Amino acid sequence: MYQKNPTCDLNHGPIQEDQLKLVSRKRVPEGTVIDVSGIQIGGPEIVIIAGPCSVESEEQLSSTATAVKELGAHILRGGAYKPRTSPYSFQGLQDEGLTLLSWIRDEIDIPVVTEVMDPRKLELVCEHADILQIGSRNMHNTPLLNEVGKVRKPVLLKRGMSATIEEFLYAAEYIIKQGNDQVILCERGIRTFEPSTRFTLDIGAIPVLKRLSHLPVIVDPSHGTGHWWMVPGLAKAAIAAGADGLIIEVHCDPQNALCDGGQSLHPDTFKDLMDELFKVALAVGRSISSSVVIR
Amino acid sequence: MYQKNPTCDLNHGPIQEDQLKLVSRKRVPEGTVIDVSGIQIGGPEIVIIAGPCSVESEEQLSSTATAVKELGAHILRGGAYKPRTSPYSFQGLQDEGLTLLSWIRDEIDIPVVTEVMDPRKLELVCEHADILQIGSRNMHNTPLLNEVGKVRKPVLLKRGMSATIEEFLYAAEYIIKQGNDQVILCERGIRTFEPSTRFTLDIGAIPVLKRLSHLPVIVDPSHGTGHWWMVPGLAKAAIAAGADGLIIEVHCDPQNALCDGGQSLHPDTFKDLMDELFKVALAVGRSISSSVVIR
Amino acid sequence: MYQKNPTCDLNHGPIQEDQLKLVSRKRVPEGTVIDVSGIQIGGPEIVIIAGPCSVESEEQLSSTATAVKELGAHILRGGAYKPRTSPYSFQGLQDEGLTLLSWIRDEIDIPVVTEVMDPRKLELVCEHADILQIGSRNMHNTPLLNEVGKVRKPVLLKRGMSATIEEFLYAAEYIIKQGNDQVILCERGIRTFEPSTRFTLDIGAIPVLKRLSHLPVIVDPSHGTGHWWMVPGLAKAAIAAGADGLIIEVHCDPQNALCDGGQSLHPDTFKDLMDELFKVALAVGRSISSSVVIR
Amino acid sequence: MYQKNPTCDLNHGPIQEDQLKLVSRKRVPEGTVIDVSGIQIGGPEIVIIAGPCSVESEEQLSSTATAVKELGAHILRGGAYKPRTSPYSFQGLQDEGLTLLSWIRDEIDIPVVTEVMDPRKLELVCEHADILQIGSRNMHNTPLLNEVGKVRKPVLLKRGMSATIEEFLYAAEYIIKQGNDQVILCERGIRTFEPSTRFTLDIGAIPVLKRLSHLPVIVDPSHGTGHWWMVPGLAKAAIAAGADGLIIEVHCDPQNALCDGGQSLHPDTFKDLMDELFKVALAVGRSISSSVVIR
Repeated sequence: MYQKNPTCDLNHGPIQEDQLKLVSRKRVPEGTVIDVSGIQIGGPEIVIIAGPCSVESEEQLSSTATAVKELGAHILRGGAYKPRTSPYSFQGLQDEGLTLLSWIRDEIDIPVVTEVMDPRKLELVCEHADILQIGSRNMHNTPLLNEVGKVRKPVLLKRGMSATIEEFLYAAEYIIKQGNDQVILCERGIRTFEPSTRFTLDIGAIPVLKRLSHLPVIVDPSHGTGHWWMVPGLAKAAIAAGADGLIIEVHCDPQNALCDGGQSLHPDTFKDLMDELFKVALAVGRSISSSVVIR
Repeated sequence: MYQKNPTCDLNHGPIQEDQLKLVSRKRVPEGTVIDVSGIQIGGPEIVIIAGPCSVESEEQLSSTATAVKELGAHILRGGAYKPRTSPYSFQGLQDEGLTLLSWIRDEIDIPVVTEVMDPRKLELVCEHADILQIGSRNMHNTPLLNEVGKVRKPVLLKRGMSATIEEFLYAAEYIIKQGNDQVILCERGIRTFEPSTRFTLDIGAIPVLKRLSHLPVIVDPSHGTGHWWMVPGLAKAAIAAGADGLIIEVHCDPQNALCDGGQSLHPDTFKDLMDELFKVALAVGRSISSSVVIR
Repeated sequence: MYQKNPTCDLNHGPIQEDQLKLVSRKRVPEGTVIDVSGIQIGGPEIVIIAGPCSVESEEQLSSTATAVKELGAHILRGGAYKPRTSPYSFQGLQDEGLTLLSWIRDEIDIPVVTEVMDPRKLELVCEHADILQIGSRNMHNTPLLNEVGKVRKPVLLKRGMSATIEEFLYAAEYIIKQGNDQVILCERGIRTFEPSTRFTLDIGAIPVLKRLSHLPVIVDPSHGTGHWWMVPGLAKAAIAAGADGLIIEVHCDPQNALCDGGQSLHPDTFKDLMDELFKVALAVGRSISSSVVIR
Repeated sequence: MYQKNPTCDLNHGPIQEDQLKLVSRKRVPEGTVIDVSGIQIGGPEIVIIAGPCSVESEEQLSSTATAVKELGAHILRGGAYKPRTSPYSFQGLQDEGLTLLSWIRDEIDIPVVTEVMDPRKLELVCEHADILQIGSRNMHNTPLLNEVGKVRKPVLLKRGMSATIEEFLYAAEYIIKQGNDQVILCERGIRTFEPSTRFTLDIGAIPVLKRLSHLPVIVDPSHGTGHWWMVPGLAKAAIAAGADGLIIEVHCDPQNALCDGGQSLHPDTFKDLMDELFKVALAVGRSISSSVVIR
């Protein structure tokens, strides 16, 4: 059943494509399209996910969600449980944040994606979210991967901050092996020696993932750079390189955000970016529908 | 309570020492010593943890455990739950592996350390293990850190494969903040561009951790290199640089190990290494007691 | 004159913008435009540099140069002196390669860029080339930087494979300090842990360089990825992110190239890419003139 | 003669040992010993090179050289030409620094090592130095490697800050291929994501280099860490792991050093370190002779 493995888990050398069975493009040559309340991820249309890093209050969530929806975002992002480096940083509103997300989803009629960090919270998150996010810090958390593999919700799987592309695909393989093949891959920047950006967004991962796997690929230019003024350039680059969508942090008052304000776009900047993305998408044979139309 | 944080979680620049409160050496200038069944970790004696990467069978565990104890190891290591890159690799014997560990602990009278990956398994692991290991892939798993912070067992916390030293210390801070201050830090190699070793063992982390924190520091030269023939050199280097102990993979039949055989020492090599470590420890003003004496 | 420097040359932490005097955007807020035989680098038009990794023969250079010029490339690239990892790899045709480059430049009327590695060859290279290239392996070679700073030829300066953006800008500062302010910055991929690509192309460096400096920025998607099939995606990404041009390896017979064949585009693929780049440039408010028109 | 190379210069995957011909241990199984004025590098004795980062003045050099010799250093280091990140930092005393080095060499009778950066200065440096240093920033500078390969002086070759071990050995291969087989390899830290140290000293490179090559291996714990208080721990680790020697920065007045003062040991700290190194060397079957005895 399990292969004998005299060598170590490797992290160098060429990708062993024959071991990546369920994620392999050979299995679904035309590519997988995932439907989220009528929105197609992985199809010809580019999908825009936007919203605050974390849910902070009803007022903050409501204003930001309304803004991003009006400006064309198809899906709302917002963290209820936040994995922070320091225990003294804001950890998210936890269960209360989930309730707020759920309420705004119904209120303004937009699907939501939020992170699940703890297998004991999975059932609760499934009740409130349309897409489950596995964050970068949990990409190697195999018990959690196995659990989200057992539910029937799309999973947005973020690349670990130092995961090779091969390891990233194996994490998706874990989820699909349990029965859930609705996995969306998300490149979000890798850790390198360069200190002027928070991470180094690996745009090259897009063509590699697209060649090896049938799964949709989206990009997070907010965490990938750490600076709001870099987000538009990298967002356009991701679409030009073949990404199926973007997940972008937007906050109505970035200066006072409780988390990652420095990388959040103000709605005005997001509006300008949407106009630019519309043109870049067309230039590469894709399109971005207004959220009203495609739902 | 929580600070407003307009910038992102940073991973560059100097360490903010004033934010690392509970792990700070200023709090325990003389250094923390952790007692595990009479073995002192962090005191003048160097502590050697040895054993197989994973528990494979009664016979395998028994022969390896007996060998390492006879050769002077103070604590037995062995994984029951294994975090593997591929879902098709051996995942450990799971609960059955724990039972075997527990049995051998009583049989040959040696404390054991084993990894806990899932908060739902924590109670079970606590029943069978003397030290809980948080593996590299879970260093950023804050729900798990919080849970092991609530129990009263020593925790061997491995550095994430791309965690900065600051992030590593914050992970320890999470555990101690919940009430459990028995944390042992373990450097186990970081991810770099160099392909000839599995990871790059960051020997420099030892003096940095010792300067900043009061917690004991041990080193894993097996995962840090990925090659058994590199383990002796790096083990000696770690002690020379000030580490309080080592965790070394030993297997009676490395060729047929189900996991990480390429980095496991045969007991004969481990024996030679123990003799060499004895001399290096003395050269830096430490010592290694035979396991019989110090228990 | 020289500041006393009690600390080490740093490579972490925020960029000290006040130390980057001559390259600073504050000095030339509108951005520097460099003229090469009537081609403007850094202006509204995107500039395409294409050609073989190395000059191999008259026939090879002639066929490739003719092809790329017909397909719209504005400048020809080709290495006469090649910095190879192994002394047993092809080292370039050396002086003879320069003569061939010079001949083809006149023959088909296209400016050429070629690498200079040795200060003793600088005068000779200046006679034959329109742009001097400083390769990635020599970005830290300060005697060479000082020498090219004394001539009056544009310099295409490639980022060192592990140079921070700050160090990259300091290398340009060396050149300008000697009197030559015609420096073109070239992002060409940095060294990371990811093994599936030759380097990790740092698309995020484009907006950072553009914000900090007035110098034109071009991108090398061939070395940056190491795989020809990745070049189109990354070339489009670079333009979308704000690059002023591209340097792309093209070879009429990649299978038999003496150097870097795996990353070279066949002219047919280059033709398709030019069509796509034309559209992406327009989408971001830039344009690509046919080489006939702009000269 | 030169092999056709359809793929790119690779930097991932296992080392192609059969391509590393002249540096291979198979060629000199017992290991190469290099004699520098009677001092044997690569033999059973550990060799200590010490001195200031750069030559600043007659007084500074004289006091530091006298101190390190009295404390047991066998060879004096000191830079006349300094490769600095910023053109506004102190660049060394240049030719005048060489003259000072030469004078002190005769005055206190100690061999000296100094860096050569420019092939046009090679003859001059050869007149004044006993060992030529190729710095980290020039490890990929093949014209310079070829030149030092043509002279009959020992070469201390530092690993490039992002060079793989394979590339490092190829750089040595370049030198030996030209006829000079007196090459000393020097590990000096690699560039990683970790910001608390200047570089990450790759102690694991020592056993890898020793296994693959017959050349002596020394370690630079000063540049490898960037902090003087880390130097003793890493110096001891290097010897414990099998290094043949150390190159350590010592300065009589580190606070006022013109270069890298933060990583320089005061002679008092160097004295304590020498006592400790003496014990660690014995513990691993080596020894450190006083400089008087072995000359």
